[in-house]
Amino acid sequence: MKAPLLAALLLTAPLGAEIFSDSDLAIARELRESTLAGSGGFEIVEDLTTRIGPRLAGSEADPRAVEWAVAMLTELGFDRVWREPATFPTWSRGHEEVAVISPVEQDFEALAIGYSPATPPQGIEAEVVMFDDLAALEAAAADTLSGKIVFIRNRMQRARDGSGYGPAVQARARGAMVAAEKGAEAQLIRSIGTSSNRFAHTGGMRFDTAVRSLPAAAISNPDADQLERLIGLGEPVTIRMNIAAQINQAYTSHNVIAQIDGARYPEQIVALGAHLDSWDVGTGALDDGAGVAIVTEAAHRILQLDRRPDQSIQVILFAAEEIGLWGGRAFAQARSENIEQIHVAAESDFGAGPIYSMSARVIESARPVIEAIAAELEPLGIALTDSRRASAGPDFIPALPLGLAAVDLYQDGTNYFDYHHTENDTLDKIDPDALRQNAASYAVFAWLAAQSPRGFGSGSPLLEQERED
Amino acid sequence: MKAPLLAALLLTAPLGAEIFSDSDLAIARELRESTLAGSGGFEIVEDLTTRIGPRLAGSEADPRAVEWAVAMLTELGFDRVWREPATFPTWSRGHEEVAVISPVEQDFEALAIGYSPATPPQGIEAEVVMFDDLAALEAAAADTLSGKIVFIRNRMQRARDGSGYGPAVQARARGAMVAAEKGAEAQLIRSIGTSSNRFAHTGGMRFDTAVRSLPAAAISNPDADQLERLIGLGEPVTIRMNIAAQINQAYTSHNVIAQIDGARYPEQIVALGAHLDSWDVGTGALDDGAGVAIVTEAAHRILQLDRRPDQSIQVILFAAEEIGLWGGRAFAQARSENIEQIHVAAESDFGAGPIYSMSARVIESARPVIEAIAAELEPLGIALTDSRRASAGPDFIPALPLGLAAVDLYQDGTNYFDYHHTENDTLDKIDPDALRQNAASYAVFAWLAAQSPRGFGSGSPLLEQERED
Repeated sequence: MKAPLLAALLLTAPLGAEIFSDSDLAIARELRESTLAGSGGFEIVEDLTTRIGPRLAGSEADPRAVEWAVAMLTELGFDRVWREPATFPTWSRGHEEVAVISPVEQDFEALAIGYSPATPPQGIEAEVVMFDDLAALEAAAADTLSGKIVFIRNRMQRARDGSGYGPAVQARARGAMVAAEKGAEAQLIRSIGTSSNRFAHTGGMRFDTAVRSLPAAAISNPDADQLERLIGLGEPVTIRMNIAAQINQAYTSHNVIAQIDGARYPEQIVALGAHLDSWDVGTGALDDGAGVAIVTEAAHRILQLDRRPDQSIQVILFAAEEIGLWGGRAFAQARSENIEQIHVAAESDFGAGPIYSMSARVIESARPVIEAIAAELEPLGIALTDSRRASAGPDFIPALPLGLAAVDLYQDGTNYFDYHHTENDTLDKIDPDALRQNAASYAVFAWLAAQSPRGFGSGSPLLEQERED
Repeated sequence: MKAPLLAALLLTAPLGAEIFSDSDLAIARELRESTLAGSGGFEIVEDLTTRIGPRLAGSEADPRAVEWAVAMLTELGFDRVWREPATFPTWSRGHEEVAVISPVEQDFEALAIGYSPATPPQGIEAEVVMFDDLAALEAAAADTLSGKIVFIRNRMQRARDGSGYGPAVQARARGAMVAAEKGAEAQLIRSIGTSSNRFAHTGGMRFDTAVRSLPAAAISNPDADQLERLIGLGEPVTIRMNIAAQINQAYTSHNVIAQIDGARYPEQIVALGAHLDSWDVGTGALDDGAGVAIVTEAAHRILQLDRRPDQSIQVILFAAEEIGLWGGRAFAQARSENIEQIHVAAESDFGAGPIYSMSARVIESARPVIEAIAAELEPLGIALTDSRRASAGPDFIPALPLGLAAVDLYQDGTNYFDYHHTENDTLDKIDPDALRQNAASYAVFAWLAAQSPRGFGSGSPLLEQERED
């Protein structure tokens, strides 16, 4: 045996053995291998995307999706399945048209942005003014864009960790409000995605009834290229935009929660999240049917063991994530007095690429537990990072200020933004092998977290301090 | 020097030298290298797709495209530029809607097929009956499909030579007429393409006013998968189809022809073809803006030499290829009495992949000339095949029965049918390096063909015999 390998064994093997019992570790390894040999939950996302399909929060598909989730989780045999309400203002698409009318006539592939107001029924015709990014638009003098359509051309960069999304998406999240301040009539963006396929992407803009917004749409990346070329010809480019979207009354949907009751500490919960809603244009296979499949399959594997975990495990399928984390907000609010009952949380909401990395935001005394869990994930190709920046995923973000302990299992997102929030997010984009690897990772994580003899730190001052860094 | 290499030199070098003069060969090699170092004509397809965009035959963009082509070829300095009329029945899309309404409601991505009649204004709602392919539909008993929508699910296979297209496209070309015979109300097909992106493809169906047809549309491949899954649930699947397409009066467009006058035999013509029209959904960058760029750039390189070729070279930009080879038919008809003036013909109409193979359909005595040309194309990665099955490309097919000598320069079409006839056929799909290789190949071919001391065999009995094989 070579010295480094021996050293590695000395460093890691005793660690796990010190924290977890032999039988807990044996079960973790058995879960890992049996889940890898299973379906990864593919039949779950197949059924969701086929029977329900697109399921925009507050649409007619919303209650059908909730019914589907309750029936599916009940049928799988979870100890308890229930719903918790989440209320939010809905938005419906209607139709959108974006076309160049001068110097030549050409239709663009476009999607209105979530919470975009409608244009007047006859649409808007105006000259386009192009900006490199939101900062350039912010730098424009007040009222200089009167009667214009603003076009922000920033391009999202491809990266495994999806880090290109955050900077680019500002144009979508805040661009319309900034353009409104400058006197513009409407706003266009290049799609916040990495594909050169001719799909426009959608997504939400900031919803704030106190601030004036504008009709806003994203055009596909090839159409954004075309618009740049047309502007480059040197003549004014005039565009017609017509959006018939509607912001509606408050609607109440539901987070759907299924629980495996813990044998020793049933009130302590390992929370696995995913969101049930999707945008309205694809069937939401990657976003987030895959997450629904992954966490349900992981928990179901644990449910099928001949013993219950020490702590409870919950599968939480959130409502209305896409249009503003409304399910996550309701979840946090409902737990504002007892967030410490959540031992640790992790959400799967980044498509179906394989997990390559793990990060944890826990109290320092729980770090050895995380390291012991990571050692059991390592055979799946997952490395523990030094970063303590885990968010547990978007739906748990509203609970982070309460002191929620968070784990992130980072998926390879190199290709995720080729499909994200487009019509092209369909079942065929899911790689079954990667789905199995994901389900196995969550099964190992959830099982060992539920067997952990140490707390991960809910509400601890250390977490508070980290947040302020 | 190794023996095989020496043998190869002995076999090929004397061949070219026997047929072409040293200066002709030197010019061919110079053309090859200088064209490879140039733009490949990228600026031509960029300008066409930007200023004109989609250019369906008979649409408002048709005359704009013709004007553009005349101006572009004139500006490049061709000796003569003219138009020849082509008359045809136009078809316009209007709108299309294909949606599942039972057992669940879901919209499909769909495109009406060219020459599809319209549905009644309120659309058609009917149960779907699925068939594996056109042969299975043909085998159905008469009147068994009364009140049904036929769905043909055959999948196109990916291949470098595009050989998967022919078998699969029968469902589009003839399916609606066969379905009409069986009493059906409308017809759907899986898109005849190889991509799993959610684009429907379009394309023509057989146009025959003497035979009853049906409203017909293609759905995207992910939607075809979804439809199969929905049918697999076991309940009847009902679909709503609404197509507002229109078949119009005869319209006259024009083939646009530019000529380099030959110095010794100006009445003998080397004909390079591409088509100017496109489908209405993309900007026709691959189909066939790339071909326009390739043959124009090739001829323009020859035009810029300090001597004229022995024979004339024509660039022929055909009208109305997509909806029925109408420009090609008019071209053949206009030359029915003097097809022998066309020395040899070749069209570029298979996207922008690199050329890997050459085939020629010429009299046997011209075979050494073809071999000598192939030897000069070999450094571009092009191999001469034994097959004599060349068609010269779609627009020259109507002239083949007249005895046209044909050369095919086969492009790698592995990915062509990922984009073909979809909204996704846009400029960014063209690889500039491959475009340069194409232009260099056509420049070498056209130059040497125009310097050939031997005829390629227009109207020869041998060509007649080969056609009958």
